[in-house]
Amino acid sequence: MSVLVVGSVAFDALETPFGKVERTLGGAATYLSVAASYFVPVRLVGVVGEDFSARDAAIFRGRRIDTRGLERVAGKTFFWAGRYSEDMNQRVTLATELNVFADFNPKLPEAYRDSRFIFLANIHPALQESVVKQVNGRPKVVALDTMNHWIERTPGELRQTLKLVDILVINDEEARQLSGKHNLLHAAQVIFRLGPKILVIKRGEFGAVLMRGKDVFTVPGFPLHDVRDPTGAGDCFAGGFMGALAQAGRVTDASLRAAMVYGSVMGRFAVERFGLDRLRQLKPREVKQRARRFYGLTRFRL
Amino acid sequence: MSVLVVGSVAFDALETPFGKVERTLGGAATYLSVAASYFVPVRLVGVVGEDFSARDAAIFRGRRIDTRGLERVAGKTFFWAGRYSEDMNQRVTLATELNVFADFNPKLPEAYRDSRFIFLANIHPALQESVVKQVNGRPKVVALDTMNHWIERTPGELRQTLKLVDILVINDEEARQLSGKHNLLHAAQVIFRLGPKILVIKRGEFGAVLMRGKDVFTVPGFPLHDVRDPTGAGDCFAGGFMGALAQAGRVTDASLRAAMVYGSVMGRFAVERFGLDRLRQLKPREVKQRARRFYGLTRFRL
Repeated sequence: MSVLVVGSVAFDALETPFGKVERTLGGAATYLSVAASYFVPVRLVGVVGEDFSARDAAIFRGRRIDTRGLERVAGKTFFWAGRYSEDMNQRVTLATELNVFADFNPKLPEAYRDSRFIFLANIHPALQESVVKQVNGRPKVVALDTMNHWIERTPGELRQTLKLVDILVINDEEARQLSGKHNLLHAAQVIFRLGPKILVIKRGEFGAVLMRGKDVFTVPGFPLHDVRDPTGAGDCFAGGFMGALAQAGRVTDASLRAAMVYGSVMGRFAVERFGLDRLRQLKPREVKQRARRFYGLTRFRL
Repeated sequence: MSVLVVGSVAFDALETPFGKVERTLGGAATYLSVAASYFVPVRLVGVVGEDFSARDAAIFRGRRIDTRGLERVAGKTFFWAGRYSEDMNQRVTLATELNVFADFNPKLPEAYRDSRFIFLANIHPALQESVVKQVNGRPKVVALDTMNHWIERTPGELRQTLKLVDILVINDEEARQLSGKHNLLHAAQVIFRLGPKILVIKRGEFGAVLMRGKDVFTVPGFPLHDVRDPTGAGDCFAGGFMGALAQAGRVTDASLRAAMVYGSVMGRFAVERFGLDRLRQLKPREVKQRARRFYGLTRFRL
């Protein structure tokens, strides 16, 4: 079962206490696709400019990532520059140049229209909706990420889109903002009424929480000796989660829990190096090994 | 196996978004003792003033808490007033009146001197040291909590005391401050060189982390519908942890992990009501039931 991923492909300039890069491939859809491709084939939908070279595209080759949906248009690729605080829990955006991403209007190649597992990364909710509408028949799982920008500025469109969504994958703050509830159990109940029946809350180094009905599952963040660059961690979590779920092929309590562990694994690998550097070298064997270490991290007996 | 607890007994004035109390029994040693008493008999060492009535002492009666070490002296009991922020993650101290606690000099009754499990709650490190020195022979476990105040102002005395400590129970921020390391794996290695061979990091709603050598165990915070007052959560965690460990009677990987779960259980019960209100009514059966719910919260299969 493949995963359809739609979202941003970008160049990032990153600065953390551990270093600086002037221009590295990034964007939610890039991180998501690479992370998900460890589990299943991926179909990528996005847009890049003329400055996106064959060398940039190398990250997708040799992985099971179909780039027929990666449109190349006149202009420059989306560019983002950010700097992280000393403890890396805060970041300031230094530049956002939307460029070709400003007119992004995702079009699914014919070959993508039978997709059954769809991840809508953080873009305008109307575009997210249009992607779901282009799929033939009823997908098995539609998962969506969004951010404060859309929650504040396009609440109507977001609510419209959420009706089509099975799994909402956001962070604590976004869950609180979207629901108007500080307590996350209360927030989940509000969100379940908007459409998604499953809520996944990403918590960075603290791992993630899965809520479904009254059921709650938590997964810790893998403790790391080196955290160099938090960029893409949430998207890699989402990619690992969605990839593992599609690999399982069905949504059960067991497949969701395993997917949470794989999400946490991929999210934490991402932060060990700058940009996609860790994922470039990551071996499937390492993914499995680290996932198994979550047993030791969480097992107890009363 | 009983637990010896030394620390503050206080009256608190508390204000949270969910209410306000003018004067309620509190103090680290109080929370710790009550929480630990669900698992083993407790021996309490502390000091109160003349305003501490038989009614106040009622919380200790009917539980297995020996108060022969609770000194009553002329003057007023330690008083603390604090207000929590809207999200309850911040608090401001409105008043600290040390009163009789200013001259606290813990003295172990003869009957306490054979104690084998000792919890030194947050007080001056020289006093913590004096307690260990009053114990006959070598205790099985000395656990210690401290805070930024002592880390900053009495670093020499704290280091001296830490040499006698097996388990350090602090929060993220304190671990970082004490070690000078932001990364908690690095912080643990620094702390292990100071004496403690086990580090327990309390993370509030995010649960807690246990580090011992290279081994790491995480326990989530139990998700709650109602969080009314965070006061005493960390001390109840410590009490549950230490009580369960003493009940096991020995320090093994398995007993430490189970103790972490019981710590998390007790810490989260505490915040459901103001002050000690939830613990006053809490039944041993509820403690066991909630601990078992941590299986569902954490179990997965790859």
